[in-house]
Amino acid sequence: MTERVYLDWNATAPLRPEARAAMLAALDAGNPSSVHAEGRAARALVEDAREAVARLVGAAPRDVIFTSGGTEANVLALTPALQVGADTAPRDRLLVSAIEHASVRSGGRFPTNAVDIVPVTPDGLVDLAALAARLEALAVENTGIRPLVSVMHANNETGVVQPIAAAAELVHAAGGILHVDAVQSAGKIPCDIGALGADLMTLSGHKIGGPKGVGAVVLRSAAIHVSDPLLKGGGQERGARAGTENVAAIAGFGAAAAAAARDLAAAGPAMATRRDALEAQVAAGSPQTCVIGGAAPRLPNTSLLAAPGLKAETALIALDLAGLAVSSGAACSSGKVGASQVLAAMGVPPAIAAGAIRVSLGPATTERDVAAFVDAWNGLVRRLSKGGCGIAA
Amino acid sequence: MTERVYLDWNATAPLRPEARAAMLAALDAGNPSSVHAEGRAARALVEDAREAVARLVGAAPRDVIFTSGGTEANVLALTPALQVGADTAPRDRLLVSAIEHASVRSGGRFPTNAVDIVPVTPDGLVDLAALAARLEALAVENTGIRPLVSVMHANNETGVVQPIAAAAELVHAAGGILHVDAVQSAGKIPCDIGALGADLMTLSGHKIGGPKGVGAVVLRSAAIHVSDPLLKGGGQERGARAGTENVAAIAGFGAAAAAAARDLAAAGPAMATRRDALEAQVAAGSPQTCVIGGAAPRLPNTSLLAAPGLKAETALIALDLAGLAVSSGAACSSGKVGASQVLAAMGVPPAIAAGAIRVSLGPATTERDVAAFVDAWNGLVRRLSKGGCGIAA
Repeated sequence: MTERVYLDWNATAPLRPEARAAMLAALDAGNPSSVHAEGRAARALVEDAREAVARLVGAAPRDVIFTSGGTEANVLALTPALQVGADTAPRDRLLVSAIEHASVRSGGRFPTNAVDIVPVTPDGLVDLAALAARLEALAVENTGIRPLVSVMHANNETGVVQPIAAAAELVHAAGGILHVDAVQSAGKIPCDIGALGADLMTLSGHKIGGPKGVGAVVLRSAAIHVSDPLLKGGGQERGARAGTENVAAIAGFGAAAAAAARDLAAAGPAMATRRDALEAQVAAGSPQTCVIGGAAPRLPNTSLLAAPGLKAETALIALDLAGLAVSSGAACSSGKVGASQVLAAMGVPPAIAAGAIRVSLGPATTERDVAAFVDAWNGLVRRLSKGGCGIAA
Repeated sequence: MTERVYLDWNATAPLRPEARAAMLAALDAGNPSSVHAEGRAARALVEDAREAVARLVGAAPRDVIFTSGGTEANVLALTPALQVGADTAPRDRLLVSAIEHASVRSGGRFPTNAVDIVPVTPDGLVDLAALAARLEALAVENTGIRPLVSVMHANNETGVVQPIAAAAELVHAAGGILHVDAVQSAGKIPCDIGALGADLMTLSGHKIGGPKGVGAVVLRSAAIHVSDPLLKGGGQERGARAGTENVAAIAGFGAAAAAAARDLAAAGPAMATRRDALEAQVAAGSPQTCVIGGAAPRLPNTSLLAAPGLKAETALIALDLAGLAVSSGAACSSGKVGASQVLAAMGVPPAIAAGAIRVSLGPATTERDVAAFVDAWNGLVRRLSKGGCGIAA
C-alpha cells in the first residue's frame, strides 16, 4: 500500500499522542462509583478530564456532562424539558438550521411537528432575518412558546462558521434558549461558550483528536438544567446521564481538549495557510473547480470542492486508490454517497452537489499532503470535468 | 501502598490482555462510516467484534446492536415500541423484577405508571407465581395488553441466578416479550439467548473484561425490532443507534467476549472453588457471618456477606485501608453507601442489609487473595459484630 494521505479530519481526527497516553494510563481504571482506592483513582481521572474539557470552552467543570459522543449530546440537549433557573415552562418548539447534523435535524426529543427548519443563505450561513421572523411569529408574549434554537458553530461539510453571537442575541431577546453544536469548531477556532452566547453546547472527543465514544453537553451555567436525562439508572453525571463512566475515553478526551486548547493559536493559522494554498493550487490547475461556501467565513481546515461533471463516488474511489482519504460531505452511515442536505439547503445545483468532495486538514497535515491531493484532484478534473461550476466563490 | 487485592469484579472487571491488545490496535482507526480504506478498516474491526459478541450468547451478528454500555442498552431495549415480526402493537406495560439494576427499575422508556414491580422470594429469586399472576391479570385476550417483562439473568449484589427459562415460558404463553439483563452473568455462566428464551438481552463490555463505555442489546432474531432508536442521526447500527461507533471499545469488547467464551468452561468452576473456600473459611472463622442469597443458585464468583452489628461503610473503609477492594452491593454513583433495594425486596432485615459486603471474584483471583480477605473479614467481625445473623443460608 502506498503511504496514505489522510485529509478527512472532519470525519474523525487521528488520536493525539497526549490522548493516547492518557487512555493507556486509564485502561486499568476502576469504577468511578466505587468507594475504594481503585474507584477514587478512576473518579479523579474523570474529574481531571472534566476540568480540561470545561477549560477548552470557558465553562465551569460542574457544567460539563459527559456522553457517549456528539450524537448523544445533541439528543440529550434537545429536549422540551430544559429548565433555566426557576423557569420550568416546557420548550415546546425547536428551531434548527437547515444545515445541522442529522442528529439535530431529526429533532432530538421533540415531536416531529414541533420542529421548524430555519433556512440558510446560498453562502451557507444561517439566515438571520428568517430566524428573526420565526422567533417573532413565535413571540412568547403572544403564544406562550419559549423556543429552543439549535445552530451549529461550524458546518461539517462546508466549514462555514455561523454567526452564533448574532443568533444568540435574537434568541435571547425572544425568550429562547440557544444550543450550539460545536463538534466541528472546537479545537479549530475559539469556542468560548460565554463569548458565543450559547446556553448549551455539544462537543465530541474524536473530532478534536480524542477517542471515539465520548462527547459532552456543556451548559453555560448551573442555571441551565436538563431535567429529563436520556439515560436513567445509577445517577452518574449528577443525575444527568446514567451509566458507568467511559473512564479511558473521558481521560483521552480531557487530554485532547488540553492539547487542543494549548495548540489553538498556532494550529488554526497553520491549517489555514495549507488549506488556502490547496485552494489556490486547485484554482490554478483546474479553474473549473469551485469552493462551496468559499464566500463565507470558514474553519481554517475545511474545503468543499466541486467540479461540473465530476461524480463524488468516482472521485472518492479514484482518490482512495491514489492513497488519499477524503470524503463526500458527512460520513454517511451506510457507506454510500448520498445527496447532501446541506448543499440542497444552500441551493447548490444537484449536478454540482453530486460531485462535492470535502477535504479537511489537521494540525499534522503537511505541504506534501496538500501537493499530493492537488496533483490527484487536478488530474481528475482535467480528465472528467466539463464546463464551469456556476457558483461564485 | 500495600499490594492491592481486587475483589470487586462485579463493579468492573480488570481489562483482559486480549481486550487491551485489540483496543491498542484500534486506537488509530478511522470512522467506520467513511468510504475510504481507513473507514473500511474501521468497519471491519466493528464487524469482527460483532461476530465475537454474538457468538458469546449464541446470536446472529446482525442481531447485535452496540451501545455505550449496559445502561444505554437497557434503556434502548425497554420501550413500548418493540415490534415482533408483523406485530406492531405497542407494549403498553412493563413488568420488572424488584431486584433489577436501577436502569431497568426506572422503567426505560415506559411512563412510570406503566411499570409494575414483580416481587422476589426471600432467597432472592424472582417470584414466578407472582409473575404468573400478574401476567394472567394482564392477559391479552382480556385487556389487549402485550407486556414486556424484564428479569435479570443474575443479580449484581447477591449473584443469585434467576429462573429465566421458566420466566420465559410464562411470558411467552401470555403473549409477552422477555428482556434479560445479562450484564452480570455473561462470561461467568452460559448465556445462550435461545436456551434462556430471552427475546432481548443486555450485555456490558467492562463486566466481562472488556472496556467501559460499550455494551450491546442482542436480539433473539431479526424478527425483533426496536422501532424507536434512542439516538437518531447518522443511521449507524442499521438505524437502531446513531453516532460514530466507539471502534476501540467495540474491538476490546469483541476480544473480551471471545476470551470469555473460550475460558468459560474452566473459569466458572475455578471461581466457584475459590468462592466456596472463602465462604467456608468465613463460616469457620466468624460463624455469625451469613451469606445473603446463599440458599439459591448463584454465580460462581459472588458472595454477599453480612454480620450483625457490622456497618458496611466502616467495613469498606477498614478493608480498603487493609488493601482490599470490595463493595457494599452495587457501585453507587454518589460514592455513598446507600440502602440496597435488592436486599429490601428480599426482606433482609435493615440492620443486616446495612452491613452487607459484596465480594466478587474473577478468573485471576488467587488463593492468596481469598486468604487476605478472610483474615481481614474474620478480624473485623470478631471486633465489631455481635449476635447472630438471623438469615438461613
